[in-house]
Order: sequence, then structure tokens, then C-alpha cells
Amino acid sequence: MHPLDKATSLQEIVSGSLQGETSDAYWNFGGPFGGVTAATLLRAVLDRADRIGDPCAVTVNFTAAIARGPFEVTVRSVRTGRSVQHWYAEIRQGETVAANATIVCARRKAGWSHQPATPPPAPPPEAITAMTTDGRNAFVGQFEFRFVEGALLPSAQPAETPRSARSCLWLNNAVPRDWDFIGLVAFCDLFFGRIYHVKGTIFPIATVSMTAYFHVDRDCLAALGSAPLLGVADANVFHAGFFDQTAELWSAGGRLLATTTQIVTYRE
Amino acid sequence: MHPLDKATSLQEIVSGSLQGETSDAYWNFGGPFGGVTAATLLRAVLDRADRIGDPCAVTVNFTAAIARGPFEVTVRSVRTGRSVQHWYAEIRQGETVAANATIVCARRKAGWSHQPATPPPAPPPEAITAMTTDGRNAFVGQFEFRFVEGALLPSAQPAETPRSARSCLWLNNAVPRDWDFIGLVAFCDLFFGRIYHVKGTIFPIATVSMTAYFHVDRDCLAALGSAPLLGVADANVFHAGFFDQTAELWSAGGRLLATTTQIVTYRE
Repeated sequence: MHPLDKATSLQEIVSGSLQGETSDAYWNFGGPFGGVTAATLLRAVLDRADRIGDPCAVTVNFTAAIARGPFEVTVRSVRTGRSVQHWYAEIRQGETVAANATIVCARRKAGWSHQPATPPPAPPPEAITAMTTDGRNAFVGQFEFRFVEGALLPSAQPAETPRSARSCLWLNNAVPRDWDFIGLVAFCDLFFGRIYHVKGTIFPIATVSMTAYFHVDRDCLAALGSAPLLGVADANVFHAGFFDQTAELWSAGGRLLATTTQIVTYRE
Repeated sequence: MHPLDKATSLQEIVSGSLQGETSDAYWNFGGPFGGVTAATLLRAVLDRADRIGDPCAVTVNFTAAIARGPFEVTVRSVRTGRSVQHWYAEIRQGETVAANATIVCARRKAGWSHQPATPPPAPPPEAITAMTTDGRNAFVGQFEFRFVEGALLPSAQPAETPRSARSCLWLNNAVPRDWDFIGLVAFCDLFFGRIYHVKGTIFPIATVSMTAYFHVDRDCLAALGSAPLLGVADANVFHAGFFDQTAELWSAGGRLLATTTQIVTYRE
């Protein structure tokens, strides 16, 4: 079993209530990598027999630190329309809600397509050496990062003037894994905190809320096999302890797979 | 009382349960303007005595059509940390959840600020004639739209080739209203569906989910008085019945107040 599938696996206790366990393989500063938390919440919905279509919108709020060990996932259907279905899910440890999510699934209708967005120019992934992941938090080692632009080059002291918040990079799992929505939502949180790029130093930060929109169906994703995705990330504003982060995930063929935003808190 | 305050006013029935009523003044195609629905859910949280700080992230899912008449709003605290607080709210009519929201409030910490994003160039609002709102859905008449770029110029037939999805415009309330988060979240949904600009025709569409991040505190907002805001909206991809929409709201002084994204469903 792939480490991501192991980390997001859930066992049904009673209907609507599942049990999972944190994975050391995806450990971050003080808890699991947020992308795995998002993927776990999404899996709870995708595993439902009464789910329709494919996920198109996911918002995950990281409400409390998740401690190493077991957790409970509860999921409930909020509303099912003709082609759109809304879900609400929570991760709990004891009495504490550690994360919650609203998830929208939809049956897409074949028809008109138009993609005004254009992928960033990039050399092929095999032309770029992967960033070393030695000495980093465990989750980093589960992935490959090949920076086209805006590499993570941290130093001990913050930069005197803010640097660019923008990065462009090829991303993949270190252990190959075929694409599905579990992988895609995890990768939406795989962009390093933009504040690391702007300040040039690394320190603990915490995503408060992340939203991801998916622009493809499962067949389109599956057709990508386990090929790397091209990612672009940027930020608009850092202010009084919070910053935003925007990102896109592209296929090598120039298809926009997902767009995502998050708001992150930091302490100076 | 300003029409927006009237449209979003709530009466507490029991603790955590409030009653509101739809407003004809903000009627859209088949229900209330989504910005007012978002503002109503936000008001339910802002009115709470145990709320801390200011809102920084709001996700609203439009789960079912809201019928003309009364509705119930329920709100519950999900988790309160030292400086960040998470809420969940729903709008119900009978047994149907018509909208739900996750709302994050936070106490901001004074400190470092950095705004890599830059406002779009625009002439002052008084140099631009406001779009006529005659013959449009009622909610449109509650606002002023002064297009700098990408005006809404619908015709009876769709354009043969897709047009630009991008608009830049000054926005304001038709009846002046001082800025607060109720107003700001409503304006996050005030950008016309990008598909109208791309196709050049107007037809019913429905926002499925909207996320807004606020980058200012209440004092910064209040200092703007009732001045117009500069908005920019765009879209990345239209595919198989869904498209995304991205937008920014700027102060005239060049401060980024809010960034927002939404996913919208359409039928051809």
C-alpha cells in the first residue's frame, strides 16, 4: 500500500463515523502534513456509497493541532441536489474538533470547455535536479520538488528586503502513485509557506483554512498515470500575523487540474 | 436602516438559532443575491457575544435554492484557540439546508506587513459613468458598477469566439453605506459571472461555493467610510458545466482588502 493511502486509510466504526491514525511518514512541525489531513477528510466522503460524481470543491479548516495517534472522522450529507451534493466532515480527538471540511461533489456534464489560464513555461522535469529533502520534516521526504523558479533557499537570518513570493516547480510523490483526488487534494497543500520564500528563513507556521477547486474528472486524472504535476504558487499579502497563498496544479500537457488558496498564520 | 442591513437582519429565537427573511430588494434570478446570503451567515457569527477578533476566512456553500420568505440560521462554535476561532453556520428552510458556511475569526497581531500584489491601474471612479441597472435583476440596482475594463455588454447571441473573462471596475452601494465585513463579504460575490463576459450573453447560473479571505481589520475598513472599492475579477477554466472565478477588492489607496474565489455551475 502506498504511504499516502496508508496515512489516509479509515475504518468504519458505525455509519458516518470512521477511525484513522496519524502517520509518522507525513509528520510536519507539530502535527500531520495538512495535505494528508485534507485527503483523509476527502476520503471519508469518497468512500460513501451514496456519494454522487466527483469532488469539485473542498474547504478544510485546520481548527486545532492533531496529536500523534488515533482520531475519529464523522461525515454527514448536508444536501443532495440533481447533480451537486454537499458534505460536512470533522476530525475529532476526544472532545476537540481538530479539522473540519465542506466538500462539494458533482456530476459533470459533457459540453463546452474553455481554459483562459495558461501554464507557466517550464523545462521538462527530468531536466531539473530534485531538491534534497534530508534534514527536513518527515513529510517533505515523501515528495519530489524540482524548482523551475523561486527555489526554497533558506538561511539562518531573514532577508533584509522581502524576496519574491512566487515559485514554479514540478511536484510528485517520491514513491510513484497514480493520480486521483486523494493525491490531488494533498498536493494542493504541498507548496511551501510563501513566507519562507519572502523572508528566506524557515519557522513554524500553520494553515488556518484551505480551499481547493478541481477542474477535471477522475478519468482525466487517471489518464495522467503517476507523472509529475507542474505547480505555481504565489501570495498577495502578509499582514499582522496572516498571509494568503494561491496555487495552481497543471498536467504536463497544459491542463489546469486544480486551483487552490489558503490563509496561513505565523508568529514573528 | 440601510437595505443591506435590513436584508441581513436576524432575530434570535433561542440561543444559536436565529430567524431571517429574504429581501426582494436583493432578488436575483431564482433566489436572493448570494452576497446577501453570505453576509447573513457572517452576521450570525459577528453578533455572537463569544466571538473573538475579526473574520479572516469565510466559505459559503449554496446548497439549495432559497425560497422567498422566512428562514432559520443556526450557528455553532467549532473550536476556539488562543487567537483563532472557527464557526459553522447553516441557513435552513424547513428540512432543507439552503446554505452553509465555515467562518474563521482571528485576533490579529500588530507587526510586519508586506503586500506583493499591486492594484490595477484605474482612473478615479468619478471619471467613469455608472452602468445602467434598469431592466436587470433587483439586486443589481442596489449597487453601482463603473467599469474600467471588461464591461458587461450582453447581446442576444453568444459570441463566436470566447472573449476575455477579466473585468476591472469600481463598485459601491447605490445607497451609501460605511464599510464593514458585512458589506465586504457581500461585495466578494458582486462580480458578474465570468461566463457572461466570455460568452457575451446572460442566462441563469448558480454559485456552488465561495471563499473569501479578509486582509484588514475593522478599523481599517471603517476608515474607508463609504468610498467605492476597486475590483478585479477573472476566471481560469470553464469545463463541463462548472467554472471558477477569482477576484480582489482594493481600497482607492491601494490596500488589498479581500481576495475571493468561487466555483459556479451553468447549463448550456
